Amino acid sequence: MKTYLDCYPCLLRQALSAARRAGAPESQQYSILLETMDELRAFPLGSTPPQLAHQIHQRVRQLTNNIDPYREDKEQATQQALALYPGLKKKVNEASDPLEMAIRIAIAGNIIDLGAAENYDLDATLQHVLSQALAINDIVSFRMALARRPSVLYLADNAGETVFDRILIETLDTPVTYVVKAGPIINDATLEDAVAAGIDQVAKIIDNGSNAPGTLLDQCSKTFRNHFAQADLVIAKGQANYESLSEISAPIFFLLQAKCSVIAGELGIIEGGAVLKQQKISQ
Amino acid sequence: MKTYLDCYPCLLRQALSAARRAGAPESQQYSILLETMDELRAFPLGSTPPQLAHQIHQRVRQLTNNIDPYREDKEQATQQALALYPGLKKKVNEASDPLEMAIRIAIAGNIIDLGAAENYDLDATLQHVLSQALAINDIVSFRMALARRPSVLYLADNAGETVFDRILIETLDTPVTYVVKAGPIINDATLEDAVAAGIDQVAKIIDNGSNAPGTLLDQCSKTFRNHFAQADLVIAKGQANYESLSEISAPIFFLLQAKCSVIAGELGIIEGGAVLKQQKISQ
Repeated sequence: MKTYLDCYPCLLRQALSAARRAGAPESQQYSILLETMDELRAFPLGSTPPQLAHQIHQRVRQLTNNIDPYREDKEQATQQALALYPGLKKKVNEASDPLEMAIRIAIAGNIIDLGAAENYDLDATLQHVLSQALAINDIVSFRMALARRPSVLYLADNAGETVFDRILIETLDTPVTYVVKAGPIINDATLEDAVAAGIDQVAKIIDNGSNAPGTLLDQCSKTFRNHFAQADLVIAKGQANYESLSEISAPIFFLLQAKCSVIAGELGIIEGGAVLKQQKISQ
Repeated sequence: MKTYLDCYPCLLRQALSAARRAGAPESQQYSILLETMDELRAFPLGSTPPQLAHQIHQRVRQLTNNIDPYREDKEQATQQALALYPGLKKKVNEASDPLEMAIRIAIAGNIIDLGAAENYDLDATLQHVLSQALAINDIVSFRMALARRPSVLYLADNAGETVFDRILIETLDTPVTYVVKAGPIINDATLEDAVAAGIDQVAKIIDNGSNAPGTLLDQCSKTFRNHFAQADLVIAKGQANYESLSEISAPIFFLLQAKCSVIAGELGIIEGGAVLKQQKISQ
């Protein structure tokens, strides 16, 4: 997906937010704002939003000398999600359609995103996504794909959301490889975050060799790219994975919350909509 | 009020929004984004948000050759508000405390602001502001000030909001001079918008000689400044009037919705809070 002009102010906001979370004093926050505007000016049109976000957040980490500004936010999100785990498992177990319930829970968990917005309301989102119709619902195709008991490559998004992913993985009844980032970027899940969520008990965990948001294939490791090429089924969580893979021909199902007007517009749905979308594969 | 760093991404978003409303093609929207970043970079720290907004919106109007990008939005807002007028008048007439009801209605109308956000939900805001406690409520002082039947200088904010102001003016029972902008800026009310709302039937209308948002006294006409200096009581509507007058010693009551985290933080209240705040006058 291309970067829309609306992404520019959003990325400027993100740089400021990351600088603050990294503990930068106000004078440094200001110089980071100015430098981010220079970066935005220099970026070629046609880049994807994760490409811009990657560079901008990397620069903030360098300038603030803080390799993981979102560490505390990530730990809190995981603890918050783990506290909800028993209740959500019960919902799945008692549901007339456990798979659909687990999908909805995994999508609701995608609200835990500190890139798209400054904060989130997890309880309200859960309530909304568990009770409303999905804005895009390719569950019939998803069931058909799952019926073949495929090997699933599950591209993670954020820490905390990992707990909600675990619930879906436990419901899939097929082998899953869970892919995290190789290093910190925004509040995206790394190995440490996935283990804290207990993913190691239900899936094999690998990293994609990159610390860009989403999945920028040209920056991922060869090992990951092999996994990606051979996967029977890819579950790609979150906006950044959609933004980076929306034009890649692969057996992908995107699960996400449309958390901004840009992605909602791109998908043709209302902002806040919950999405289970099958990738169109060109022949 | 100083410009916070959070205002930079917001002003960049505003420039893009104004360019689109002015009908700029995408290539021009992009060049306006780049130029706005240059303007933001060059602006001296310590400026108020309305000073920055004034320059940025002025430049968008020049570049797009559109002197009033928000004209259609303003007309629609006035029509929407006029349709609500009879029902809101009834609420005031039936209220146990008509003045308080009219104040709440005038504050709710401040949600009609296309600077602070891209859109607004007038019905939800009315419901909220008419039923919840005000976040800052200096109504006791306001009643005392009104009891002297002062001449009121009423600094307008947005078109459409004007209709809600009219309801308050009709309830005040004291002579009111209603101050609009001398030319278009965002969706702020001009003479034309005030007349469309019927303000000419209930108050004398003047302009402040400026087309900056809020009230930048050094850019206002001498006539207006005389009015301001002689007013027994000033009612200042909206964020931009607060941002530009918060450090001016004058008998002001600010009526506004705190529509962003910056002003909510400055006022020490939650975002979305409704405010009737008396200016502290230094001796």
